[in-house]
Amino acid sequence: MSPTAPPLAGKLAGLRSSAIRDLLELAERPDVLSLAGGLPDAALMPRERIAAATESALTDARSLQYTGSPGWGPLREVLAARESVKLGRTVPTAEVFVTHGSQQALALLAEVLLDPGALVVVEDPAYVGALQVFRAAGARIAAIPLDDDGMRLDLLAELLARGERPALVHTVSTFHNPGGVTMSAARRAELAELAAAHGFWVIEDDPYGELWFDGPPPAPVAAHGANVIRLSSASKILAPALRVGWMVAPVRVARAVELLKQGADLCGSALTQQVAAELLADELWLAGHVDRVRDAYGQRAKALVGAVREEFGARLRCTDAAGGMFVWGEFTDGTDTAALLPVAVEAGVAFVPGAAFAVEAGYRSALRMCFTTSDAASLTEAVARLGRAAQSTQP
Amino acid sequence: MSPTAPPLAGKLAGLRSSAIRDLLELAERPDVLSLAGGLPDAALMPRERIAAATESALTDARSLQYTGSPGWGPLREVLAARESVKLGRTVPTAEVFVTHGSQQALALLAEVLLDPGALVVVEDPAYVGALQVFRAAGARIAAIPLDDDGMRLDLLAELLARGERPALVHTVSTFHNPGGVTMSAARRAELAELAAAHGFWVIEDDPYGELWFDGPPPAPVAAHGANVIRLSSASKILAPALRVGWMVAPVRVARAVELLKQGADLCGSALTQQVAAELLADELWLAGHVDRVRDAYGQRAKALVGAVREEFGARLRCTDAAGGMFVWGEFTDGTDTAALLPVAVEAGVAFVPGAAFAVEAGYRSALRMCFTTSDAASLTEAVARLGRAAQSTQP
Repeated sequence: MSPTAPPLAGKLAGLRSSAIRDLLELAERPDVLSLAGGLPDAALMPRERIAAATESALTDARSLQYTGSPGWGPLREVLAARESVKLGRTVPTAEVFVTHGSQQALALLAEVLLDPGALVVVEDPAYVGALQVFRAAGARIAAIPLDDDGMRLDLLAELLARGERPALVHTVSTFHNPGGVTMSAARRAELAELAAAHGFWVIEDDPYGELWFDGPPPAPVAAHGANVIRLSSASKILAPALRVGWMVAPVRVARAVELLKQGADLCGSALTQQVAAELLADELWLAGHVDRVRDAYGQRAKALVGAVREEFGARLRCTDAAGGMFVWGEFTDGTDTAALLPVAVEAGVAFVPGAAFAVEAGYRSALRMCFTTSDAASLTEAVARLGRAAQSTQP
Repeated sequence: MSPTAPPLAGKLAGLRSSAIRDLLELAERPDVLSLAGGLPDAALMPRERIAAATESALTDARSLQYTGSPGWGPLREVLAARESVKLGRTVPTAEVFVTHGSQQALALLAEVLLDPGALVVVEDPAYVGALQVFRAAGARIAAIPLDDDGMRLDLLAELLARGERPALVHTVSTFHNPGGVTMSAARRAELAELAAAHGFWVIEDDPYGELWFDGPPPAPVAAHGANVIRLSSASKILAPALRVGWMVAPVRVARAVELLKQGADLCGSALTQQVAAELLADELWLAGHVDRVRDAYGQRAKALVGAVREEFGARLRCTDAAGGMFVWGEFTDGTDTAALLPVAVEAGVAFVPGAAFAVEAGYRSALRMCFTTSDAASLTEAVARLGRAAQSTQP
C-alpha cells in the first residue's frame, strides 16, 4: 500500500465475517453431507408460477421502472390483507413497508430505533444477522436464554426490575433460528404487556411462521400490543431471489424507515414485488404450494430428529422440529462441538457449532442442524457419520 | 401516543424527505407536463429481452436461491470484462461488487470510508442521494462548484492548500445530475493525482456515462489512479427494476463492503442479476439497444435545449445536454425559481428549482429539467408554458 493509500473507517476494525458464513464453505465439498446450511430448498420453489407471473408483469412497462420506497402499492395491499388476518385487526396499508428481505428491515430499524449505547435485548442463542446489525449500531447487548417455550420472560422481568431500560427486544418468536423453539401463547401476551408497561419496542422477526408441520403457531406477539413491529418474508415460502421482506409497524416508524430507505437503496424491484404480489394474492394456489413445502420439510425434520434420537439417545438432546428449518441439539456429556466439527467434516458431515450463535451463554456443547435441503436418506446418513465422529471425540 | 410509546432515535430529528421527492408528486397531476422527474423512459426498456432472459434463467433453480453478498458470480465476471475495457487495465473479479442499485454502493461506502466528522467534498449543485448519505454518516460537507468542465479543481486545490484533509471526494463525473456537465479529461487526471498526493478517496459516480449523444466521454477518473472507486448501474441502460448497480474498488474496500452488505440485506437477487448478466454479456444486442436509447434521448435533449434557447434567449442560460438525462438552466436576470415553480405548475409545467440541489451556493435562479420521458412536442409545449409563467414573474 502506498503511503497515500487512504484509510478505511475506524469502526471496521471490530467487524468480522460471520462464523456461519465462513463455515458454509465447508458445505461445498461434494463429499460432505451438510447440516450446516440455512437455505430453503430451491427445488421446492415455484419456478413455473414465478415465470408465468414475471411474463405477465412484463406486459406493463411500469414493472421495470423505479417504484416507491415503501414498496409496490398492490403488494403492500396484499400484505396488509394477509397481516390483518394474522393480527386480528385491520392493518392499514400505511403500516406495511416492503424491504429488501427482512434483513434490510432489521438494518433500517436499528437506525430508526436505536441511539448509540441503547440497550438491545436479544435471545441466547441469537439470530446472528440481527446481532450483527445491533452491534454495528453501537447498541449494548443483553441476552436472555431460550427454553422450550421461547424467551425466558422471567429473566427479562428480572432485568427490568434491576432498572435496565431496553430500547428494544428482538425475538424470533416462531421456530427459532437457531434454537428451534416457539414462544408460547402466554409469553407472547406477556412480552407485549411488558413492552407497553416499560415503553420498549419489540421486533418480532418471523420468517418461518408459515412453515408449521403439525399445527399453526400461536397468534403473533404483534397481535397483543402496539409496540411490536412484525417482520416477515417471502424468502422461505416463495423464493429468496424475489428479495421481498416486509414489516408491519406504526406509521411514524414506517415513515422514518422510508427516509432511511431512500438513502440506503432508493427502492426495491417493481418487477419482483409485482410477482410476489400476484403469488401472495392467489390464496388457493399459495395454500397448496405452502402445504407441499410443509410436507417436504416436515418429513425431513422427522427423519433428522428420529435419526439423532436413535443414534445418540440421551447423549444428544434435540428440539422436536415442529416447524421452520432447524433442529437445535445439545450434548449432555460435555462434548465440545467446535472441537467436534473438524472431525465431523473428516467423517463427511458438517453442522454449525452452538458457539457461533452464543451471546452470553457459551453453548459449547450445542449445534444447529438444518434439514431443508437433504432427503431423509441423506439426513440419516449424515447423522450416522456424526455418530462416528462423536464416538471418537467422546469426552 | 400513550405515555409508554417508545421513542425513535434522536438523529431522526435532522432527517427530512428530499425536496425532489416531494416535488415529484406535482408531476403526477395529469394536466402538468413535467420536467421535474428523473426517471429513465420505461417505454425504452427492453421488456421482451428481459422476459426471455428471465424465462431462461428460471430453468435453473439456483436463480431463485440466495446468492453471495458480492453478487452473482457470472454477473461480476461480465462486469469485470466491461470495466476492464473502460479502465484500460485487467479488472479482477474480486474488485467488482454488485449492489442494490448504485445508491446502495454510496450508502455502504459511506460506512466503510467515513469516520464521524470526516470531511467529504461534494459538487455544488450536488447529487442529493449522495449528500443525504454523507450527512447521515455524520460527515462534514464541503462543496466545490461546477463549471462547464466539471468540478472546479482549482478550488479543491485551494481547499487542500488551506490544510483541509478530505476523507473522500464525490463526483458525478459524466453528464452530471443535476448540473448537466462532464468533467474534462485533464481534470480527471488531475483529480486522481490530487487523490494520490493527498491520500483521499474519490467516488466516481457514473450512472449516465453510456448515454452520450454525440461522442463518448473521456476515460473515467478511475482510469487515472488507484484511490478512485467507480460506481455504475444498469438502471439507466437496462431497467431500474433489475436493481443492479456495481462498484469497482480495491479488494480491501470490496471486502469491507461485503461485511456491511451482509448486515444491510444479505445479498441481491440471483434472478435479476442473472438477467442483467445475460443482457450485458450480449454485446451486439446491447450496443444496438443502447444506441436506440441514445438516439431517443438525444433527440429529446435537442428539442428541449432548442426550445429553451428560442423561448428565453439570453435570459436563461442552459447546458448543451451532450448526454445523460438532465439540462441545467440558470436565469441571468435574477428570476427566483422556487417562487416561479407554483406559477409554472399553475401554467401546467413542473421542474426542480436549483435550491433543491444547492449545498453552499444558493442556485436560486437555477433549475433542473429532465428530458427523458417526454417527446419533442411535449418538451416544446412545456417550455412554452414555462415561458408564460416566467413572463408573469419577471423580476
